[in-house]
Amino acid sequence: MTAVLLMAGTAGAASPTGAVRAWRQAHEKEIVSDFAAMLAVPNVATTVPDVEKNAAYISALLQKRGFKTQLLTAEPRTPPSILAALKTPGAKRTVVFYAHYDGQPIGQKGWISTPFEPSMRTALPEARPVDWKAATGPLDPDWRLFARSAGDDKGTIQAFISAFDALKAAGIKPSVNIKLLYEGEEEQGSPHFARLVAKNLELVRGDLLIMGDGPMHQSGKQEINFGNRGITGFTATVYGPLKPLHDGHYGSWAPSPTVMIASLVMSLRDDEGRILIPGFYDDVAPVSAADKTALAALPDVETGLKRAMGLGRNIGPPRLADGYMAPTLNVRAIHAGDEGPNAANAIATEGEASFDFRLAPGETPARVRELTEAHLTRQGWFIVRDAPDLATRLAHPKIARIIWDAGSSVATESAMDGPGAKAVAASISRTVGYPVLRLPFMGASSGMAEIVNQMKAPMVGVAIANYDDNQHAQNENLRLGNLWDGIEVYAGLIADLNW
Amino acid sequence: MTAVLLMAGTAGAASPTGAVRAWRQAHEKEIVSDFAAMLAVPNVATTVPDVEKNAAYISALLQKRGFKTQLLTAEPRTPPSILAALKTPGAKRTVVFYAHYDGQPIGQKGWISTPFEPSMRTALPEARPVDWKAATGPLDPDWRLFARSAGDDKGTIQAFISAFDALKAAGIKPSVNIKLLYEGEEEQGSPHFARLVAKNLELVRGDLLIMGDGPMHQSGKQEINFGNRGITGFTATVYGPLKPLHDGHYGSWAPSPTVMIASLVMSLRDDEGRILIPGFYDDVAPVSAADKTALAALPDVETGLKRAMGLGRNIGPPRLADGYMAPTLNVRAIHAGDEGPNAANAIATEGEASFDFRLAPGETPARVRELTEAHLTRQGWFIVRDAPDLATRLAHPKIARIIWDAGSSVATESAMDGPGAKAVAASISRTVGYPVLRLPFMGASSGMAEIVNQMKAPMVGVAIANYDDNQHAQNENLRLGNLWDGIEVYAGLIADLNW
Repeated sequence: MTAVLLMAGTAGAASPTGAVRAWRQAHEKEIVSDFAAMLAVPNVATTVPDVEKNAAYISALLQKRGFKTQLLTAEPRTPPSILAALKTPGAKRTVVFYAHYDGQPIGQKGWISTPFEPSMRTALPEARPVDWKAATGPLDPDWRLFARSAGDDKGTIQAFISAFDALKAAGIKPSVNIKLLYEGEEEQGSPHFARLVAKNLELVRGDLLIMGDGPMHQSGKQEINFGNRGITGFTATVYGPLKPLHDGHYGSWAPSPTVMIASLVMSLRDDEGRILIPGFYDDVAPVSAADKTALAALPDVETGLKRAMGLGRNIGPPRLADGYMAPTLNVRAIHAGDEGPNAANAIATEGEASFDFRLAPGETPARVRELTEAHLTRQGWFIVRDAPDLATRLAHPKIARIIWDAGSSVATESAMDGPGAKAVAASISRTVGYPVLRLPFMGASSGMAEIVNQMKAPMVGVAIANYDDNQHAQNENLRLGNLWDGIEVYAGLIADLNW
Repeated sequence: MTAVLLMAGTAGAASPTGAVRAWRQAHEKEIVSDFAAMLAVPNVATTVPDVEKNAAYISALLQKRGFKTQLLTAEPRTPPSILAALKTPGAKRTVVFYAHYDGQPIGQKGWISTPFEPSMRTALPEARPVDWKAATGPLDPDWRLFARSAGDDKGTIQAFISAFDALKAAGIKPSVNIKLLYEGEEEQGSPHFARLVAKNLELVRGDLLIMGDGPMHQSGKQEINFGNRGITGFTATVYGPLKPLHDGHYGSWAPSPTVMIASLVMSLRDDEGRILIPGFYDDVAPVSAADKTALAALPDVETGLKRAMGLGRNIGPPRLADGYMAPTLNVRAIHAGDEGPNAANAIATEGEASFDFRLAPGETPARVRELTEAHLTRQGWFIVRDAPDLATRLAHPKIARIIWDAGSSVATESAMDGPGAKAVAASISRTVGYPVLRLPFMGASSGMAEIVNQMKAPMVGVAIANYDDNQHAQNENLRLGNLWDGIEVYAGLIADLNW
């Protein structure tokens, strides 16, 4: 049935791909230069003044292209979202293109270049610096531009802008009214974004949301998705002696925060990925037959992934995307005691671990927090929000300071067979020349869930970044070929969406 | 019976304490100045050139006082031990005074002063810097000198030297032949010390070993001990994906090194301190009736310790010293993923934990290693010694790189009722004016175990450092009053040991 739908779509408009590709081939260095300039503006989500500089920078790019822009905020001193609008005479549909322009923190070890000094590098695994400005002929599509946000999400923003420029140069008009909604606090967990949209609902409303976040399918094939998991995260700190103690003299008597934090982790999740909190899976919505069919149709990527990642096993279901249909507890970090091989023979004073839950449809962050804290309390943890004073320490044998992340979101899932969704599938299939892959929803999260709920518009995710773009980690990058393909995909979405 | 023995001892020689105290009171600033100069010579155990500078520095101090000194090494380029000898005409016994002059690493966070720039500070908890050189009248005995090795063990070396100077000034002769054996690699786990002693057995031999390592009893009373636990330690590294992965996309599928390392920790030890390795306790020698009696006679310190450490519970036996009679597994550190509250939502590539076992009499490091690795193997870990290559990673679902510390030692325990031991107890009881506390053996470890075995001489531990000296951690310090008392105790041991 999928094939029939796609064929029906394919019968429609003429694809702009040829013209767009010719323009891109003639402007490769200009595109890379513009992209590098955008990436050079630091955008760590928690540094609001930097985020604001990005908002101004990207707004100016869009104004130059005829968009009306404004910065929306939920309240003063929160990161702005950019809203940019362009009317198309005669168009009956309005498509809202979402991306976020803020980036993850950059403190990870092992960056081979400076996060905000974009560095072009040869294909992996060598990743040698390369002077792309001095290159003759077409740039190698396997080269990668390394910088924070190259893949997540400034690449999407650059793809849209270049697609727009290519269509304009070819005299091809958009087929829909366009709204761009570029968020500035996604990597903080979107703490104000839902309120921002609620305050500006009529301004941002459209008939279809196209979400340009996340990486492509690991097979390298273009994929669309219809939602994503929710998220809520927290940090747990546990307490040992007020001062470090010699572990020969005190190790048999003083509680060890190193062991305590490991024990807290293992009480929440096992090594196979099972969440051990009683009742945790009760709210999870069952997987529909349509979702199962779509998941089964995805090509095998697991064998190649294991090889690429150096993994001798996987946890959870054998198929990667099957795991997205259930919640996951990720232990982002665990730390206690000295670092490095010269750790002193001492009992540490504190242990810390950091977690995020990815939530499946049916779960809410509030209920997850409640279940988690009830479970910790049953394990004997006395939960505090501030560093405990002496009286608190003496009164409670096991103290855990639990701080929930400011941002959280529920999962969202749009119908795979709605008219807007089918039009997107048809457009991309025309552009790429094969039936686009369809994922019921992504494993990652985004601020889109509440937005979709508020706008009551269907959502389709269209990602262009290579799956191995190291998003959220050191050495984030975008493969040039992915940017080229992304320009063509976005040009198709601008010019030949039709329903 | 204990009291009777001590009384018998007390009947003997005239104590030099009065004369020593008068000399110390007249020379406080000179003593502190000399001590600070010794502490200013950096002595991190792993930096051999620094250790050698300390050896030269301390040797010169002893030569000036009439000792014949030499540096002993097991082999070239290993840290030297200082052997200093002084014959006493007519003496029939030779007493070997042991201490180590190397120090723990200094990389801990939270030092309030620079580890090798000794800083005098007021009593805890204020610990304000104080200009002791400008002070008038006696120095406050609750002031503390902060520096690496102030307590562990340069304080013992200073106490011996000042005691020797005080006796000389008072015209009081030693009652025994003296050998000083000052080790330079104890904080590395003494990897070459046993061989060094074996090579120089006749040079270092004596009738009694007095070991000046470790802190005093928490009650502040003088304590002697008759041995210490053994030690063997290791670092475990576990492996996840070759590159960090976005935990939304991969958290339900890729193994998490953060969880794996927590799981490895919890498979070895529980939060109550029980070692979970099957057969681990089989080799542990039973606690003798004499040891049980001595342990029961120790004053209560646990209530005060809990308050001082901010602990709402203890693990293991309620009495601190009872726990020394069994082995302990200490988890020195655990680390995986980003540090700090901004941990990225990523799956880390590796997890690491660092451990040391404190061994009870009857256990050997070799057997402990064998039991530990057999247990890990049964838990599914494939043990490697080098970072695994891709083929190894793909072939084994769970890989742990286990690196055992270079140094290790067995426990040692001398008889509490031998003639040398009784003479030491009598001398110190005379000096301090109350029956010295007797601990069967310390919870900590030292390179003395094999030495005692080789020399076939009994050992008595005599420590002078305040129990809260932060040894092995940041802000190591020695309380001035402990140095003053230590000088008197060591003067007694030099001048009135008699058996």
